[in-house]
Amino acid sequence: MIKATGAELSGHRCQFTVWAPFRKSVDVEFEAPDHKAVHLEKDKYGYWSKEVANIMAGTKYRFILDGIKPYPDPASKAQPDGVHSWSAVVDEHNYVWGDSTWNGVALKDLIIYEIHIGTFTDEGTFEAAILKLDHLLELGINAIEVMPVAQFPGSRNWGYDGVYPYAVQNSYGGGTGLKTFVDACHQKNIAVILDVVYNHMGPEGNYLAEYGPYFTGKYSTPWGKALNFDDAYSDHVKAYFLRNALMWLDDYHIDGLRLDAVHSIIDHSAYHFLKELRQSIDELQIKNRRRYFLIAESELNDVRILEPYEKGGYGLDAQWTDDFHHAVHALATGEKDGYYQDYGKINHLAKAFRQGFVYDGEYSSFRKKTVGNSPQSMASSRFIVCIQNHDQIGNRMLGERVAGLVSFEMLKLMAGIMLVSPYVPMLFMGEEYGENHPFQYFIHHGDSDLAEAVRKGRSKAFKALKSKRKMPDPQAKETYNHSKLKWNFHQHPEQRALFTYYQYLISLRKQGLFSVFFKRHLDTEVHEQQKLLMVR
Amino acid sequence: MIKATGAELSGHRCQFTVWAPFRKSVDVEFEAPDHKAVHLEKDKYGYWSKEVANIMAGTKYRFILDGIKPYPDPASKAQPDGVHSWSAVVDEHNYVWGDSTWNGVALKDLIIYEIHIGTFTDEGTFEAAILKLDHLLELGINAIEVMPVAQFPGSRNWGYDGVYPYAVQNSYGGGTGLKTFVDACHQKNIAVILDVVYNHMGPEGNYLAEYGPYFTGKYSTPWGKALNFDDAYSDHVKAYFLRNALMWLDDYHIDGLRLDAVHSIIDHSAYHFLKELRQSIDELQIKNRRRYFLIAESELNDVRILEPYEKGGYGLDAQWTDDFHHAVHALATGEKDGYYQDYGKINHLAKAFRQGFVYDGEYSSFRKKTVGNSPQSMASSRFIVCIQNHDQIGNRMLGERVAGLVSFEMLKLMAGIMLVSPYVPMLFMGEEYGENHPFQYFIHHGDSDLAEAVRKGRSKAFKALKSKRKMPDPQAKETYNHSKLKWNFHQHPEQRALFTYYQYLISLRKQGLFSVFFKRHLDTEVHEQQKLLMVR
Repeated sequence: MIKATGAELSGHRCQFTVWAPFRKSVDVEFEAPDHKAVHLEKDKYGYWSKEVANIMAGTKYRFILDGIKPYPDPASKAQPDGVHSWSAVVDEHNYVWGDSTWNGVALKDLIIYEIHIGTFTDEGTFEAAILKLDHLLELGINAIEVMPVAQFPGSRNWGYDGVYPYAVQNSYGGGTGLKTFVDACHQKNIAVILDVVYNHMGPEGNYLAEYGPYFTGKYSTPWGKALNFDDAYSDHVKAYFLRNALMWLDDYHIDGLRLDAVHSIIDHSAYHFLKELRQSIDELQIKNRRRYFLIAESELNDVRILEPYEKGGYGLDAQWTDDFHHAVHALATGEKDGYYQDYGKINHLAKAFRQGFVYDGEYSSFRKKTVGNSPQSMASSRFIVCIQNHDQIGNRMLGERVAGLVSFEMLKLMAGIMLVSPYVPMLFMGEEYGENHPFQYFIHHGDSDLAEAVRKGRSKAFKALKSKRKMPDPQAKETYNHSKLKWNFHQHPEQRALFTYYQYLISLRKQGLFSVFFKRHLDTEVHEQQKLLMVR
Repeated sequence: MIKATGAELSGHRCQFTVWAPFRKSVDVEFEAPDHKAVHLEKDKYGYWSKEVANIMAGTKYRFILDGIKPYPDPASKAQPDGVHSWSAVVDEHNYVWGDSTWNGVALKDLIIYEIHIGTFTDEGTFEAAILKLDHLLELGINAIEVMPVAQFPGSRNWGYDGVYPYAVQNSYGGGTGLKTFVDACHQKNIAVILDVVYNHMGPEGNYLAEYGPYFTGKYSTPWGKALNFDDAYSDHVKAYFLRNALMWLDDYHIDGLRLDAVHSIIDHSAYHFLKELRQSIDELQIKNRRRYFLIAESELNDVRILEPYEKGGYGLDAQWTDDFHHAVHALATGEKDGYYQDYGKINHLAKAFRQGFVYDGEYSSFRKKTVGNSPQSMASSRFIVCIQNHDQIGNRMLGERVAGLVSFEMLKLMAGIMLVSPYVPMLFMGEEYGENHPFQYFIHHGDSDLAEAVRKGRSKAFKALKSKRKMPDPQAKETYNHSKLKWNFHQHPEQRALFTYYQYLISLRKQGLFSVFFKRHLDTEVHEQQKLLMVR
């Protein structure tokens, strides 16, 4: 019923397959003028396919629907000319891997470092990122979490506007760039976690709806119509994302996936997409004799995501716990805006420290509803914590990192709280030396109306702040450049000291000095007046 | 945080409470001209309340929002003049119950009989229905399932257009009528299951949105915007329905609730409404030393609804299994339209007989997606089966009962399949004697545009049938009258014989003769060619 879609190269023959159940004809056409378009054949479930001769890696193609308009392949593995143009055939087997001795890192031992390829280095490429791996080794990092790399519009984007889940962003160095990066990481004993977005598609260059019912009007999300995970034809949409996940793990040697906003993957069916995803990966684990992580971003505080299958859970390995971040941030900065109004007491931090979720069935004033259930059955390694990440920084109007908000001493205290905590810590790139440039929100849309709409939307969102500062223009190249790491911390004594401090705490953590906190029932003593939390 | 809403009478003082978080003022006004309007006071969660003196049972009142427009009480316990008019104060404690010796019936022993109060008798009242109880006793019935009785527009409606969940339909005899009916049933050792609708509100007389965010734009259902079970303010909406459920069980002595279309109760939170409902009822059970059933109508075929809490389930007692009905119906009639296309083989029936669900993770051609998960861990008493019900009959253009579709011999075979099955059987009123009048779809809207819209909608739905027969007019009184039981089966030998046959099978079932089929692993042997199913 389900077919693998995309362009599957085998020697010089290529199998083109695409799902378009309501179309009357689908042809594949090629950029090369001497290469004639070929008519695909439809099966009963709406998959169109045909094997075509004389194709090689790099051959540019697109699909013509109903003989009228050409569109890129939804399962394109390369968009060398951007989101609106030709797809390119990729030879998945021509990369020679050098990571055969790589053995992975256990979930509980991870020290994660989140990076955005575009702003991690001046060059903004995988190749340049590889040159920074020794810095991360020196710091003590053993896992890198890469913000989404699926092809997005333009060359400047956080990655959450991706529209080709199977294609690696051309400006980052494409698929081969990513493979080379993962290979290099593994050779330095660093795991790679990839951030993938299965809850929405970006607003520009998204042609999925031309092909089939990838979206459903039953549910709406902050990005419009929801992806179709439980309506008619959803088996095919689920398969599209499932196969994508398996591709990263199998073909790109990725060690784990971070699933963006799983609360917006709305699947009301008897077999939830997340469980099916985890079970598909279980099978791949057996085949490859490897362990792959699935880490969820979830605002639900619902342990069902983590519970084992026999307890009705989806069996994911871990999830981010925003409560921990918010509890630390609200105490450290005194901020009370937006969601921080739900935090700010030592008691919140104590609860976060003790069990991960603060909202475990409690009423949230900000969300105006009861949120969460009890995480007490979960080992502490099931929660990822941070004191800043791309969202918490970049969703501020000016994109200030924590280093720009609190004193140096407070900065160290925050880092300490995270690194001695029972949870898996995650740093955001530059955090280890207190990078003082911001990480701002940036886009690079080809559609100027869209760019203006984003600009206006953000401007409106920040109006309540009544800030005297001007909101950086998301579309402007300076905003992007300004967000790049500066890497000049060796010239700043305080930044150097902070790096050494992080290095030291990480090394103590690795030696197991804080594992005393990893027990099931942590004792916390709260002194609200003195703003003191004692843990034992 | 949550307050009980409605008018709570205590002596001659009455506490009026209503939730209207965004209103600037709420007054309660009274029909009696000498009774002055009273200003209610708001708490921080948006509940307005005030105790008012000189109120008695029957006092008519309504709420004025923002000093402008009056609306009935969303938690009104009586709408003596219909859905658009005054609410009336009810004294919940003035009924003297005579059912103190009633002990209930175990779920596995239930023989359910579904009735629609309006068409069960000529009079269409609870009072008249009581006179038929001896007939049901003679038949062997020990539980009656009453189609929804919440106040609906006009006097002719299946009940799924109800708009006052706390008020019993005035034309049926109101709250006292229902209590008298339940009391009479209990005194004859018959349990009462009430059909309640928590997934949508009817289209006429629904003023909930005037009061607060009872609906959310996040999800849409076949009835429009979904009720708000997980968005901001949802705690209050959940409480509104939870308290309603408890009212039926506690104040009306109802033995169990049949929850309409739970697949349209969309709650993505960490604490699903259905689990919260079952847990609230668990508490009531302890208080009242009684056992209450919760039975779901669900098209999801998802055992999560039935699984115990410790397996991540919602803990409901049972659910309807439409697969059983469809498997029997498709075989018996040869029909292939709509959802019947997914059935029609002996093998479907065998599977339904063996495990309840036919679609247990299989692809459905009609729904164009994979449906269900495995029910094998469930005892057979967790599934309710029928060979016809209000929906399967009334959603046909002409509302034909099975007796009007198949031969007399086939009718007996169908009844036999249901009554020897391992599941809890449910008859639809009149089925026991093969009533040959139809049960059609009827409404009685005050709004003629709405009546016309319903007419057109149904007409369009049945257009594909290309029937030469005319669709009955849902709004016409004849359609309603035509749907009433005729009760003249004693004059028809075949009908009399059928009644005796049902009586006999029910009595054998009660003697435990078919309990050989109640085991976990039933053997079925399928002979597709001979259209033969052997069970052992």
